[in-house]
Amino acid sequence: MTTPSSPGTTFADADPATGAAVKAADRAHVFHSWSAQEVIDPLAVAGAEGSYFWDYDGNRYLDFSSQLVNTNIGHQHPRVVAAIQEQAARLATFAPAFAIDVRSEAARLIAELTPGDLDKIFFTNGGAEAVENAVRMARLHTGRPKVLSAYRSYHGSTAAAINLTGDPRRWASDTASAGVVHFWGPYLYRSQFHASDEAQECTRALEHLEQLVAFEGPQSVAAVILETVVGTGGVLVPPDGYLAGVRELCDRYGIVFILDEVMAGFGRTGRWFAADHWDAVPDLLTFAKGVNSGYVPLGGVAISERIAATFATRPYPGGLTYSGHPLACASAVATINAMRDEHIVENAAHIGESVLGPGLRDIAERHPSVGEVRGMGVFWALDLVKDKITREPLVPYNAAGADNAPMADFAAACKRSGLWPFVNMNRTHVVPPCTITESEAKEGLGLLDEALSVADRHTAAAAG
Amino acid sequence: MTTPSSPGTTFADADPATGAAVKAADRAHVFHSWSAQEVIDPLAVAGAEGSYFWDYDGNRYLDFSSQLVNTNIGHQHPRVVAAIQEQAARLATFAPAFAIDVRSEAARLIAELTPGDLDKIFFTNGGAEAVENAVRMARLHTGRPKVLSAYRSYHGSTAAAINLTGDPRRWASDTASAGVVHFWGPYLYRSQFHASDEAQECTRALEHLEQLVAFEGPQSVAAVILETVVGTGGVLVPPDGYLAGVRELCDRYGIVFILDEVMAGFGRTGRWFAADHWDAVPDLLTFAKGVNSGYVPLGGVAISERIAATFATRPYPGGLTYSGHPLACASAVATINAMRDEHIVENAAHIGESVLGPGLRDIAERHPSVGEVRGMGVFWALDLVKDKITREPLVPYNAAGADNAPMADFAAACKRSGLWPFVNMNRTHVVPPCTITESEAKEGLGLLDEALSVADRHTAAAAG
Repeated sequence: MTTPSSPGTTFADADPATGAAVKAADRAHVFHSWSAQEVIDPLAVAGAEGSYFWDYDGNRYLDFSSQLVNTNIGHQHPRVVAAIQEQAARLATFAPAFAIDVRSEAARLIAELTPGDLDKIFFTNGGAEAVENAVRMARLHTGRPKVLSAYRSYHGSTAAAINLTGDPRRWASDTASAGVVHFWGPYLYRSQFHASDEAQECTRALEHLEQLVAFEGPQSVAAVILETVVGTGGVLVPPDGYLAGVRELCDRYGIVFILDEVMAGFGRTGRWFAADHWDAVPDLLTFAKGVNSGYVPLGGVAISERIAATFATRPYPGGLTYSGHPLACASAVATINAMRDEHIVENAAHIGESVLGPGLRDIAERHPSVGEVRGMGVFWALDLVKDKITREPLVPYNAAGADNAPMADFAAACKRSGLWPFVNMNRTHVVPPCTITESEAKEGLGLLDEALSVADRHTAAAAG
Repeated sequence: MTTPSSPGTTFADADPATGAAVKAADRAHVFHSWSAQEVIDPLAVAGAEGSYFWDYDGNRYLDFSSQLVNTNIGHQHPRVVAAIQEQAARLATFAPAFAIDVRSEAARLIAELTPGDLDKIFFTNGGAEAVENAVRMARLHTGRPKVLSAYRSYHGSTAAAINLTGDPRRWASDTASAGVVHFWGPYLYRSQFHASDEAQECTRALEHLEQLVAFEGPQSVAAVILETVVGTGGVLVPPDGYLAGVRELCDRYGIVFILDEVMAGFGRTGRWFAADHWDAVPDLLTFAKGVNSGYVPLGGVAISERIAATFATRPYPGGLTYSGHPLACASAVATINAMRDEHIVENAAHIGESVLGPGLRDIAERHPSVGEVRGMGVFWALDLVKDKITREPLVPYNAAGADNAPMADFAAACKRSGLWPFVNMNRTHVVPPCTITESEAKEGLGLLDEALSVADRHTAAAAG
């Protein structure tokens, strides 16, 4: 943990007694996501600004997680804060059935940014509901039941979304009857297809998906859903040609192509949408997180003309009380305008190309624990291994307790040094805000470099 | 539509050209909940305050809908607006894994209000996610698959929540495999059980539920979920003894009892929770809407000690990026404190007992279209009929188009008069904010009285 020192950050709230009270009330009454309630030890946070946050004990952290990869514009961006304050004074909430200025404007701005003819926006409170509704639209549009989704994916925690998910978070809620079939996407470093290069991985992954469609029966497949760049599952960047191949496959069989850009969208990859890197145009695109950096809960589905037409005169059977919430929409308008005016997406691209990409590759060369570096923009993963030759993961899949000690030790080392990491299984993701400066990114790389020495101790090289 | 005249309301935004632009952008880009997109004609709304809102053409409406029955504290309550503004400046968003002062305080305040030992709060973005998580907790706590829910219910639009729902909104998303079995709750006016009074309806409804549990197999039933007072399904107030009977049944068979207070909670019935009228204590209680009047999307589950203990050392497998969102929690703290300080729940009770109850019963006597009046607090329904003797609904179940003309005509008459109604099937609900004044409530009753003459024209009395 570094001593508070950055100009512009304040520590008025840095009173340890207050922090203790906040934490005591939390332990008494807050039930936390994805956690064993009596095992966790949540850090009490007093404030945040830009790329940093701080606790009540005077410790400051560089946020290399963007929380849950959502604060693309950084903490407490003044224009977004001001927009929330102004909209709160004007009209905080209003029902979805009405036309509201900021709702219209948010939809217009998002439609302008989304690829192709995705020009109608259905607003939700977050990513899970966006996925729920995209899948519902696809099923009703096609009249087909099944949806194909990838292993190594996360699509949200509500019933349909968690069943689509391809990581262990699904297991406890798996109904095995939600019309979901999982497939394997391309991931050369741990190839399911025994491919030797990206082009071969791409070809074989497409062949696999086409075989799956053939055996499931194309006439029963409503949709294929993909994270454009897989997020929590490993920052898996698709090889050139993969998205075009899936698009072609979907077109051939009348399948709806859904791209989940909840984590990858709104600047994270150095473009507005990850799909833009490959000029991919899905039929439905889900978003949340970066659309307003989560300052107010917001998500949504961008809908193609063809699918919107299905619901032109037939009612769409889905909705929610806060669809198109005015306060949330106002914050999205301010976020998008600030990101444009301040060239924040361009900054994410620049930081990726000039600082994070080269810096992480350099780190990988020097650390026996780093098996692969991959990513783009401010969306990177280090795939940590016991052995660079065998590529055995530093911890087993879904490890817990002692089995997970190498990763837990590494994460603790990051936090001690003042770097807040995003850790998942045997990986650490480097996912700072899109607004991060060169010097902040370099500072973070330095801290990461040090912490990786802890991971190195668990490798074959150290053992040998 | 009334001429703008109320002191305190402003019409600075009342420019018809602006309204037309807002609506044009809406029609171009906003995809609306539960709607045929090219059939709807959304009213462009310019502003709102207290019990009123207004459009861009200078028309003001008395909000007898509280939007979607969520603005319990009225539009633009100054203390809630100020709290949002202050929290936006302090810390708009932060991930669920941390302890945050306003998150702790919101959980503490809610736990203080909820009945029994429901002292742990899992926050969501809204009611659907609250229900999704309550059901997940119940299934994992019991290890059983099935959930029993009522016909004439609404629990949300995500996959598990919509399958629990007992109204036509379920049909398009019904998987018939989500482990849901529907039962009939008590509703004397249209009794499934051919009962002749409330006590008999109660006894028979409990016998029906117990038979269903016996035939489904108690060892396969995880939970019974009920809206404490059924909301959109008809403001169905349970007879004395019903909730106690369900509680006893659940205890006997080890079934989790979930009360859905998304619509009924936070003052709507004239008590903090509808359960308080009968001293009912569920194992899980879902909330949203009134917790902060929807000023920022927020919902949650209040969890009993016994169920929380299930997840003390075993991770709870559910979560969301915005669980315990600081801006949302700050608005809940301000809402609850303002409702306490300003005796808003007491006002809802008083308005129900002194104005709405007597006024609606008087209206019922004078209108052949009003079959039954029922409700409490600021939560009332008029069950509209063709014939008071046969109780034939004014329109058929799930009527559309010409079949629904009597209700559509009635709703249009309300709006022309400056009253914004909440209409569902053959019912109009009287659900103003909990803050409504006596004179506003009387104004609304007068407008409703006039509009009901339109409904009367479709009755047997008018035909005869």
